[in-house]
Amino acid sequence: MPFSEIAIDQIRSLGESKLIKQISDWLGPVTPAYPEGMGDDCALLPASKDLMVVTTDSLTFGQHFDASVSAKQAGAKLIKRNLSDIAAMGAQPSHAVLALLCGPDLSYSWLEGFFTGIRDCCENYQVKIVGGDVSGLPAGQFSAVLTLMGTVSETRLRKGATCYDYIYVTGTLGGSILSKHYTFEPRLAEGQWLANNQSCVSLMDLTDGIAKDLKLLLPDSSAAAINLEAIPVSADGDMLSKRSGLDPLEHAFCDGEDYELLFTVTKDADLKDFESKWASAFPNVQLSRVGQIIPSSETSKPYLNAATNEVLPWTSGFEHLTD
Amino acid sequence: MPFSEIAIDQIRSLGESKLIKQISDWLGPVTPAYPEGMGDDCALLPASKDLMVVTTDSLTFGQHFDASVSAKQAGAKLIKRNLSDIAAMGAQPSHAVLALLCGPDLSYSWLEGFFTGIRDCCENYQVKIVGGDVSGLPAGQFSAVLTLMGTVSETRLRKGATCYDYIYVTGTLGGSILSKHYTFEPRLAEGQWLANNQSCVSLMDLTDGIAKDLKLLLPDSSAAAINLEAIPVSADGDMLSKRSGLDPLEHAFCDGEDYELLFTVTKDADLKDFESKWASAFPNVQLSRVGQIIPSSETSKPYLNAATNEVLPWTSGFEHLTD
Repeated sequence: MPFSEIAIDQIRSLGESKLIKQISDWLGPVTPAYPEGMGDDCALLPASKDLMVVTTDSLTFGQHFDASVSAKQAGAKLIKRNLSDIAAMGAQPSHAVLALLCGPDLSYSWLEGFFTGIRDCCENYQVKIVGGDVSGLPAGQFSAVLTLMGTVSETRLRKGATCYDYIYVTGTLGGSILSKHYTFEPRLAEGQWLANNQSCVSLMDLTDGIAKDLKLLLPDSSAAAINLEAIPVSADGDMLSKRSGLDPLEHAFCDGEDYELLFTVTKDADLKDFESKWASAFPNVQLSRVGQIIPSSETSKPYLNAATNEVLPWTSGFEHLTD
Repeated sequence: MPFSEIAIDQIRSLGESKLIKQISDWLGPVTPAYPEGMGDDCALLPASKDLMVVTTDSLTFGQHFDASVSAKQAGAKLIKRNLSDIAAMGAQPSHAVLALLCGPDLSYSWLEGFFTGIRDCCENYQVKIVGGDVSGLPAGQFSAVLTLMGTVSETRLRKGATCYDYIYVTGTLGGSILSKHYTFEPRLAEGQWLANNQSCVSLMDLTDGIAKDLKLLLPDSSAAAINLEAIPVSADGDMLSKRSGLDPLEHAFCDGEDYELLFTVTKDADLKDFESKWASAFPNVQLSRVGQIIPSSETSKPYLNAATNEVLPWTSGFEHLTD
């Protein structure tokens, strides 16, 4: 639980300056020396000869995690969900700044665990935390916003996709709420490999479910012809379908937080060669060719069953602004 | 008031995708075209031959502003308080990402005003909003976190200050709560001028009051000898002291949100020449030489009255983590 009723464990007993010093100690090796790191009005970063990428994402208690989640898992998740966006650009992560918004009853010992999770994850993926901000919220509330930067020479955008491209996904889909949404590894090496492969022409990550995200990849006046047998339903998706009574495919299409990569390969590519190179590079990461982009006069960019030409019923994924 | 009881004015009626599209429309000219701007997993920024600076700061309803503040003022303030940090590095602002955390009852019309304030301010200071994130909070809550990047070739750090430096502040101090904390202009041109002036050796902005902030500039084993007559108490500081019964100097020392620059000039500089060049460059911006850094064996970095050598009683400014 992020909050404490024991006065001495509440961050209000520490005050802002001591808290920031403590955070710097907790982060240890992932905070570079001043002035690249903390301690001035801004962090000062080296010039970059490559293109830069930047993304921002938040983590809120009661919204993105609850009291059943360990502080370390929560901290790691904040970093990893941003890393998944960096992976989706084929980029290399570099620097991050972190804004904390917290009630005065936030638990000091919980926060230490949170930053331990951040530190371990940043060490693992070579991210430096170079600055941040701490500000107050009412008691019982906690949000953290991470802005993560990276560098890239070759990238692939969502809008690189065109008609007749083949659609691929990495890993398996669905049921991530059973464990994967904390245990996933962002596909950084895979994203960089794809951005440097001429056959791959568009790339994004799957965060709100393929049903919602694939539309963002499809060009205007197109549809996706899906080979349902190729959809890699995860074991957790299957397990969840037994509880929910829903089709396992619905879990694979509509569940959020897969953090897999979704990309397209140009129709002119040698698919067998591409897939065999993938298998050599990432022998432990499943690759599934799930369909193809086809022309369509519908404005809704529908998903069709490639075997029957019927429109698939799954069109929406995770929605962020509901109660 | 940021929230609405009218269902059609609540952002939950819009949903996330439409809201993001709407935000992009509101921002208009300050959102660059894809892929530098919104629409992919990350924003894609050009390489930079200069050093980069990055800062992050938040704005929370009930904490940093209340229902008496217009939506436009709140939006502008979020940008300007980050710009003040960029000014304190002598840098030029360039790109920003914005994370919104908001309850489903957030008012659509209020949010339009908020983004109008952001747009006008970004146009004025040549900031591009290149991406962001929208996520949920419980009803009745609103926070926004802006991360702002910039470029700089010549900069001045806090730790550039040494013993016998002269201490300067721009503008006037105290009582900003009466109006200046919304109407201030970040000192961008002044910061850039200082970072390119050889006499200036350290630089920061004043956000929590000189009593708290000046300590961050003082090197170890030093104190600040303050010329109290030179402290530029603002008219609002004087007015507030009549209400509070406190010494106007206490308001000048301890009130937060001045957003002025605090810097030091090396003892070897020609002070008259420096001050006369300032007056030519910024005829409308008051410059005050308020004291000098002197050696001290105290670890607390005290402030002394230069005329009497007595220790001044004002040592703390705005504290962020109180109830």
